[in-house]
Amino acid sequence: KKDYRIAVLPGDGIGPEIMQEAVKVLTLVGEREGVTFTCEEGRIGGIAIDTDGTPLPEETVTLAKQADAVLLGAVGGPKWDQNPGHLRPETGLLGIRKALGLFANIRPATMHSSLVEASSLKPEVVSGVDLIVVRELTGGIYFGEKKRYDGPNGEVAEDQCIYTEAEIERIIRVGFDIARKRKKRLVSVDKANVLESSRLWRKVAERVAADYPDVELSHQLVDSCAMQLVRAPKQFDVIVTENMFGDILSDQAAMLTGSIGMLSSASLAEGSFGLYEPVHGSAPDIAGKGIANPLATILSVAMMLRLSLGMDEAADAVENAVWAVLEAGHRTGDIAADRSKAIGTVEMGQLVRDEL
Amino acid sequence: KKDYRIAVLPGDGIGPEIMQEAVKVLTLVGEREGVTFTCEEGRIGGIAIDTDGTPLPEETVTLAKQADAVLLGAVGGPKWDQNPGHLRPETGLLGIRKALGLFANIRPATMHSSLVEASSLKPEVVSGVDLIVVRELTGGIYFGEKKRYDGPNGEVAEDQCIYTEAEIERIIRVGFDIARKRKKRLVSVDKANVLESSRLWRKVAERVAADYPDVELSHQLVDSCAMQLVRAPKQFDVIVTENMFGDILSDQAAMLTGSIGMLSSASLAEGSFGLYEPVHGSAPDIAGKGIANPLATILSVAMMLRLSLGMDEAADAVENAVWAVLEAGHRTGDIAADRSKAIGTVEMGQLVRDEL
Ligand SMILES: CC(C)[C@H](C(=O)O)[C@@H](O)C(=O)O
Ligand SMILES: CC(C)[C@H](C(=O)O)[C@@H](O)C(=O)O
Repeated sequence: KKDYRIAVLPGDGIGPEIMQEAVKVLTLVGEREGVTFTCEEGRIGGIAIDTDGTPLPEETVTLAKQADAVLLGAVGGPKWDQNPGHLRPETGLLGIRKALGLFANIRPATMHSSLVEASSLKPEVVSGVDLIVVRELTGGIYFGEKKRYDGPNGEVAEDQCIYTEAEIERIIRVGFDIARKRKKRLVSVDKANVLESSRLWRKVAERVAADYPDVELSHQLVDSCAMQLVRAPKQFDVIVTENMFGDILSDQAAMLTGSIGMLSSASLAEGSFGLYEPVHGSAPDIAGKGIANPLATILSVAMMLRLSLGMDEAADAVENAVWAVLEAGHRTGDIAADRSKAIGTVEMGQLVRDEL
Repeated sequence: KKDYRIAVLPGDGIGPEIMQEAVKVLTLVGEREGVTFTCEEGRIGGIAIDTDGTPLPEETVTLAKQADAVLLGAVGGPKWDQNPGHLRPETGLLGIRKALGLFANIRPATMHSSLVEASSLKPEVVSGVDLIVVRELTGGIYFGEKKRYDGPNGEVAEDQCIYTEAEIERIIRVGFDIARKRKKRLVSVDKANVLESSRLWRKVAERVAADYPDVELSHQLVDSCAMQLVRAPKQFDVIVTENMFGDILSDQAAMLTGSIGMLSSASLAEGSFGLYEPVHGSAPDIAGKGIANPLATILSVAMMLRLSLGMDEAADAVENAVWAVLEAGHRTGDIAADRSKAIGTVEMGQLVRDEL
């Protein structure tokens, strides 16, 4: 295939700035590889609330569904923070995950050697960290029934955490498939000593393990995993867990590296379709200043090339270009040891394209 | 009052060894202060499963209810790991929390200056860390209804996360009361952008804040808090959160210090009654070897003296004795830089009593 449709959703805050650099990189990759990427822009989050009166317009869902993959910037900002739930930017994010069936969130936390100093952990503890959190993204307590009613002790609020065997099985298989291509060790994280959903989770993980005799499966309780991530993150290769635990652990793992401006994530549906986005947020405080780090979004492009478009070599090329720019000492403000030498968003994007 | 009844529940693994040293310290405190502590032993966890066929015998609950406070060692071990839920050691722990109404778990994470090296974080990031996680302990997803049934996509498992206004209010008040005595800053952690129970949590926190105009309340999302704890733990003073988030964050916070063999916790009921225990587990691998660190259990005694018995000076004395022993360079294996110089459980206990 030589022609791909990419839905581009810049979102809010620094979203548009960083997305611009990512799209330029994608265009260059297309020229080099003789592939056409047709990028079509859509609205999501705060900008969509302002323009369309909803954080996820139907139009955006249609656009995404017709595309081969989706690139997302970031959503949210103080302007919409006091809005009721259905008019909050993140509701658009949850909505698009569900609408597109993006059940598998892949969150690598890799410590690039030239950035070890940025971490709050000791160099010997973090250097060489290279782990992936595989998070279930369309089930659990995020999407269970919610209730609010009056009881004898004031208001009562309920959230239901619900998982079916089928939902657990497909995400566990994603975990095993990734582990198989790496160090063949999978850690499944749950709270089986307390939660019924975790007990089912563990049972399914054990059953699926029979299909992957070459991968070693172990189980860890979520509290213990949060400890071990701090104590000795290098022990981990691939972690698979449910939605809420994955939200917490993947953010914790990301921060171990000290440079979340460098981390990207993929949210995959059944098949090859996926949505790709930086791990960091919309950073409204620095929006429009041209100083945001575009590398996580550029690395999201690399993930897209690899996971949705099967263009492994092009993905490697983009990643290598990013590492080369870092090794040459170029830094945006968020990862610069000496901020006075920091470069801007556009300049960083240009340097990556020069390397390419 | 000059006569206290203390229920002593050593539990499993290293529990009995470390508890012995803690009780000796308590006895010495009694002699010094002219107070009688009547310590009555009860069974909980694995030992109770073996002896009584249940991890929490009625007798133990009665013993605890008749006492002024409870000291607990640790529960659990590989022997009982494959047991069905109602015959698991931790079920005894959950049971006693509920039976005694221990709704407020107080988990300090303090970086003692002479142990900074033990942390996996950089010294400048952790030295001076002194925070408390206040965790709701008898509600939320831990105690909500659990379901397991067959559906069209295989088995289905459900956990209900439920909170009433009254439950939230009393733990938020504990958070404010503690914050008021410290730096007057309280961070309430929730996931209000996704969970209904968190939205109620936040609403109640805002309402209660009106009664504490001298304390500054802020809200943090749980994923963001997990990040910030890694990035800059010194920003925190008192964190208050619900049961499941508190389980994860308090363990993460504990591990920041690198020496969980030093940390103790209190689980308080309405009034002055409380259960005190070390944060670490039963460490079955080193049980019976006489090398376990008794300091967390000894520091639990100090917490008990302060929080349940109103003996602040005696509590200070015990804590100061522990710090003095550490400053003199004595270490058990878990916190020793040079393991060949590590001392044993009994010797460490004796050194603390000598200081006292
Ligand atoms: C914005 C929020 C709803 C979202 C989540 O909790 O999933 C975010 O934290 C994430 O991890 O993508
Ligand atoms: C053993 C387990 C049930 C317990 C909990 O999750 O509360 C433990 O992790 C704790 O924090 O005391």
